[in-house]
Amino acid sequence: MSETSLDVLAIGDAVVDVIAVADDAFLEREGLVKGSMQVLDADGATRLYAQMSQARETSGGSAANTMAGVAALGGRAGFVGQVADDQLGEIFSHDIRALGVEFLTPAKSGGAPTGRCLILVTPDAQRTMNTFRGAAHELDATALDEAQIRGAAILYLEAYLWRSAGPRAAMEQAMGIAHAAGRKVAFTLSDIACIKPHRAEMIAMLEAGAIDLLFANENEIMELAGIADREPAIDALAGRVRQIVVTCGEEGAMAIEGGQATRVPIARIGAGVVDTTGAGDLFAAGFLVGQARGRSVEDSLRMGAIAAAEVISHFGARPEADLKAMVEGL
Amino acid sequence: MSETSLDVLAIGDAVVDVIAVADDAFLEREGLVKGSMQVLDADGATRLYAQMSQARETSGGSAANTMAGVAALGGRAGFVGQVADDQLGEIFSHDIRALGVEFLTPAKSGGAPTGRCLILVTPDAQRTMNTFRGAAHELDATALDEAQIRGAAILYLEAYLWRSAGPRAAMEQAMGIAHAAGRKVAFTLSDIACIKPHRAEMIAMLEAGAIDLLFANENEIMELAGIADREPAIDALAGRVRQIVVTCGEEGAMAIEGGQATRVPIARIGAGVVDTTGAGDLFAAGFLVGQARGRSVEDSLRMGAIAAAEVISHFGARPEADLKAMVEGL
Repeated sequence: MSETSLDVLAIGDAVVDVIAVADDAFLEREGLVKGSMQVLDADGATRLYAQMSQARETSGGSAANTMAGVAALGGRAGFVGQVADDQLGEIFSHDIRALGVEFLTPAKSGGAPTGRCLILVTPDAQRTMNTFRGAAHELDATALDEAQIRGAAILYLEAYLWRSAGPRAAMEQAMGIAHAAGRKVAFTLSDIACIKPHRAEMIAMLEAGAIDLLFANENEIMELAGIADREPAIDALAGRVRQIVVTCGEEGAMAIEGGQATRVPIARIGAGVVDTTGAGDLFAAGFLVGQARGRSVEDSLRMGAIAAAEVISHFGARPEADLKAMVEGL
Repeated sequence: MSETSLDVLAIGDAVVDVIAVADDAFLEREGLVKGSMQVLDADGATRLYAQMSQARETSGGSAANTMAGVAALGGRAGFVGQVADDQLGEIFSHDIRALGVEFLTPAKSGGAPTGRCLILVTPDAQRTMNTFRGAAHELDATALDEAQIRGAAILYLEAYLWRSAGPRAAMEQAMGIAHAAGRKVAFTLSDIACIKPHRAEMIAMLEAGAIDLLFANENEIMELAGIADREPAIDALAGRVRQIVVTCGEEGAMAIEGGQATRVPIARIGAGVVDTTGAGDLFAAGFLVGQARGRSVEDSLRMGAIAAAEVISHFGARPEADLKAMVEGL
């Protein structure tokens, strides 16, 4: 295997987060299920936005947040994602590059506008996400840079984007390039709503050996296994993927590899829990950097727990504190 | 005088703030003077933005922030400002309306994009502002709604926008409408850079009786008077404006009316000073609401001090806490 030029290269949604506070009554009035992610069309997004309170905008996207975390942890990160040639696309591109993430995908003209995610944060720090995909799901194989993929130790893919046919075809091509170069492929299940309509294809992908490292939370892993208990669900999938990482909310997280489960508790930082947006994304960042840097599974899990704790201690889905310094003691 | 439909109607810059942290070395490298406001052309804005770290976007504009504060304090606020028909214009319009501020100005197509203000916050909580005016300075008299102006107890104007010829002509027309309806006109000097090239015109405007209430900080009042000491500067102007309000940083603020000076100390709230962006804007909001509601000058100053203290206790130039509740005890 040749030298790597990146620790992790992600393919994911390129969206700008529009974050506003809302109360439970607002969610009820709008028919939204707290903690869930739903997809909106342009009209639905316009209608919901009109009801929302004053917002702040920051660059987002699940896998893009993870790459922001990888870079903040001192890792070499790259990102592939589709924006339009508009103001939000400019904001997304600026922010990800400003973090030191390699971002080479050219903006598209003449199609849908840059995607956005309308995020409602309730007083209990839960986030309810409403995504207008826009240009993000117009990603196709022309966005791929073969040399960039071959040079990344880990290729990281998100189910949010994978569930659209065009982007999925591009991701499959990228997985082939990565494996041919002897690299590792990681995949996050993203959200239950991504799994339900695609369960059979996801299982087939695992059985084909396309995924080396699977990220999930406990609900997602049960949904994919089709089993309503966490441990039996993990057992059912453990034989099909070399490494599975499951986040379990307040219970912490675990990794399953070679029949061995390694567990870590959650970490606590600063003000506690302000906004849970980005917790899973940053957990993945910590684990990926640990693995890319040859750390033990337990240390990698701890790095994930610290990165997740930092991002939930403030508004927004990307780190604000010096994550590199925070994991140095590990 | 007929009933009012608004407490305060402002005419000002409609811009989106792009806020990032920066260190002193960055300001030096970019040749920026800490705490100042400079105007950028499109190229200059693009160049500076490319050097900035990851940012967050929130709606801004000095007088617009003041109206956000008036609304947060329970006042009836309106805003007149020019955005373009683009994504940042949509964000600005959404946010100001979401606060309950009446905003009727239609977006313009085919001209400059919506204006933005690149704000660098240094670790000492100072903000250095770099404004690309864009569509904001394309405002003209067609944006004015006569009935809206006649219905507002106070018309509030900012020097940032006034210094451009087109907007100034619109503001002069608005002042005429307001005075003809027996309303009060307030004006903020905004920034030293607004005063230097227009001192004579500003003095002439005061002498013509066009301004009933003048807002300034101590540097601005000295610049306008052309006197290097604060108290003599205020004395020199006091005879030309019925009411002058001067904010004096850590020393608090004062109002001068009928030869009487009323002083209040600064207020302290929450985390202390995180980001001074919006302090003057929110001070004006508190004072304006107090005056519109018939409170004493001292109470109005106290309301200004509390609103200013809240906005500097967090990132961003608009209030986040329940300002109405915070001033209820007064």
